[in-house]
Amino acid sequence: MKITCEQASLAKGVNIVSKAVPVRSTMPILECILIDASTNRITMTGNDMELGIETVVEGTIEERGVVALDAKFFAELIRKIPNAPVTIETDETWHTTITCEKTVVRVPGKSGEDFAYIPVIPRNNPVVISQMGLRDLIRQTTFAAALNNNNKLMTGEYMEIVDSRLKAVTLDGNRIAIRNVVLGTEADDSACVVPVKALNEVGKILDGGADDLINIYFTENHVIFEFNDTTVVSRLIDGEYFKIDHMISSDFVTKMTCNKKALLDSIDRSTIMSREADKKPIVFRIEGQTLSMSIESIYGTMNEEMEVAKEGADMIIGFNPKYLIDALRVIDDEDITFYLLNTKSPAIIKDDEGNYTYVVLPINISVR
Amino acid sequence: MKITCEQASLAKGVNIVSKAVPVRSTMPILECILIDASTNRITMTGNDMELGIETVVEGTIEERGVVALDAKFFAELIRKIPNAPVTIETDETWHTTITCEKTVVRVPGKSGEDFAYIPVIPRNNPVVISQMGLRDLIRQTTFAAALNNNNKLMTGEYMEIVDSRLKAVTLDGNRIAIRNVVLGTEADDSACVVPVKALNEVGKILDGGADDLINIYFTENHVIFEFNDTTVVSRLIDGEYFKIDHMISSDFVTKMTCNKKALLDSIDRSTIMSREADKKPIVFRIEGQTLSMSIESIYGTMNEEMEVAKEGADMIIGFNPKYLIDALRVIDDEDITFYLLNTKSPAIIKDDEGNYTYVVLPINISVR
Repeated sequence: MKITCEQASLAKGVNIVSKAVPVRSTMPILECILIDASTNRITMTGNDMELGIETVVEGTIEERGVVALDAKFFAELIRKIPNAPVTIETDETWHTTITCEKTVVRVPGKSGEDFAYIPVIPRNNPVVISQMGLRDLIRQTTFAAALNNNNKLMTGEYMEIVDSRLKAVTLDGNRIAIRNVVLGTEADDSACVVPVKALNEVGKILDGGADDLINIYFTENHVIFEFNDTTVVSRLIDGEYFKIDHMISSDFVTKMTCNKKALLDSIDRSTIMSREADKKPIVFRIEGQTLSMSIESIYGTMNEEMEVAKEGADMIIGFNPKYLIDALRVIDDEDITFYLLNTKSPAIIKDDEGNYTYVVLPINISVR
Repeated sequence: MKITCEQASLAKGVNIVSKAVPVRSTMPILECILIDASTNRITMTGNDMELGIETVVEGTIEERGVVALDAKFFAELIRKIPNAPVTIETDETWHTTITCEKTVVRVPGKSGEDFAYIPVIPRNNPVVISQMGLRDLIRQTTFAAALNNNNKLMTGEYMEIVDSRLKAVTLDGNRIAIRNVVLGTEADDSACVVPVKALNEVGKILDGGADDLINIYFTENHVIFEFNDTTVVSRLIDGEYFKIDHMISSDFVTKMTCNKKALLDSIDRSTIMSREADKKPIVFRIEGQTLSMSIESIYGTMNEEMEVAKEGADMIIGFNPKYLIDALRVIDDEDITFYLLNTKSPAIIKDDEGNYTYVVLPINISVR
């Protein structure tokens, strides 16, 4: 194989496919990036068997071929060489010579025979969404999934398409995040659970705006994201997702609307009082049109007060501050509304338009 | 005690004195910041018994007094409260109430009795240098000192004043860094060894430019830095510093001048080949007017070439790339000159004006 690409093109490609290269693997070939110039275009691929990413790299092919190079080493090299044309040439034993201006690097490569190409999957009607829309959706939901859990479904994001509306749900047993997006084009009804890890990597790669589109294909076992010159394939998580509808009651006795930023700043400050080790609740006292917040720990006490618009009964309820902060951070509205039923029922933060619903379980507090 | 200060003033003060607060200490009082409003001004102090920093904080004193507050907690609180006036009030048991707008925090404080104030030291003629000059000097020398060493002197920076010239020297057994600065005002001759840790903290606090001055006082056991509203006191390191003059030969057989940035970039790339575990030398081959650099490791080989201006003999010599990189990074000249004697004698990088001398010991290489 012999190809020549601009350093910037290689750097862009490496940056994208590295997201799917495992840091350590029992199969050393997976720690490689595959450079494939066996046809009339150059592609790079990374694959950890759960998530595979392939991207097209601009350049010229002088001699067709394939080589797999250690991903960490190759990425670092490409980052450090000058912004100039780079020639990558392999001999019959896959020893590879990388030349850029007066820098010449010789490294052993691998044949790529053992490399797991990303699966070729038949694609039906795509779900089309803007890159910005998907990036927002990912940012606004994945945080509420469980990072590691015996219940694999909790590490996934439920994606359901009904009547050309996409509904995305994550939960971890203490909270639920729900976002709804109206799709620009018609799409078939479907439902699946996508690993949150894959979505987060897609979110990092997407750099397009509201006008740049991404095609998503849901198949029986895989989800495929296609955008620009890049294809991301992830396995789906098997199993039936949680029935969330009956977890979210529409009953409430207290409705409280307040400025989001002021509330977020107050709760954020309260975390100074509570370190990881002792998760102290922040206690909301809603009396009249005033919300008092307090937190007590071995460090001392903190009290905050703010004006709110309240309808219904007064209420005292305690929360894990982190769960409130996570939800408030991803809501872009200026004002937000809480719906509360009692001290033990989940608090619901939602907008009137039905774009989002965030559910947070309260913490038991002994009211004095 | 009852004082009121702007959040920004408190944040600035906390940021400065925190540099002298140990993360963990067997004496819990040292993990505190002392707020002293016992006279007609407000000061904050941090002190780890080696390094003490005191700074004046603007504000109004309503009731005189002193309190010591947990530094980590107080710093985080001050950072997170709004940019508005902050009132700090203590009762007779040093319970402290911190109020800022609608935020009220109550924490236990300490009397400050056990707090080690920074020592009061008689000050003679100061050494006067610009803040920018000292900051540069610190950046350009401290890296070559040993971080931890049985020989305490290697963890210090030798500072010598002769004829109103300041000479600063650090070394770690593999390299030496020397900088010379002409002082703007007359100063008495003196010499001492300042802990590099103290200098690095001073370097972080100094925010003034070429016109802002700093006074340095050297006493028998301490060095004192006075600038803006801040005083930094550090113990000196006891003992006689190394005689460096006879380590630096003025003999050479090869003099090589080249572009600094191009050389630094080349050496920096070569480090991709050599991980921490196997410190492979970078081999310089100076032949005619060409410098070829090569490095070999289990990862492969890298070769680089650049044009240089050479006088004298051809030379092959190997270095630890890190030591060259450290020195080249802090030289601001466009071109640099190496003076080489043989493959086993230290390489010397110095300018004609005598502003700097960097010495790097070579690594033995088996020349093939």
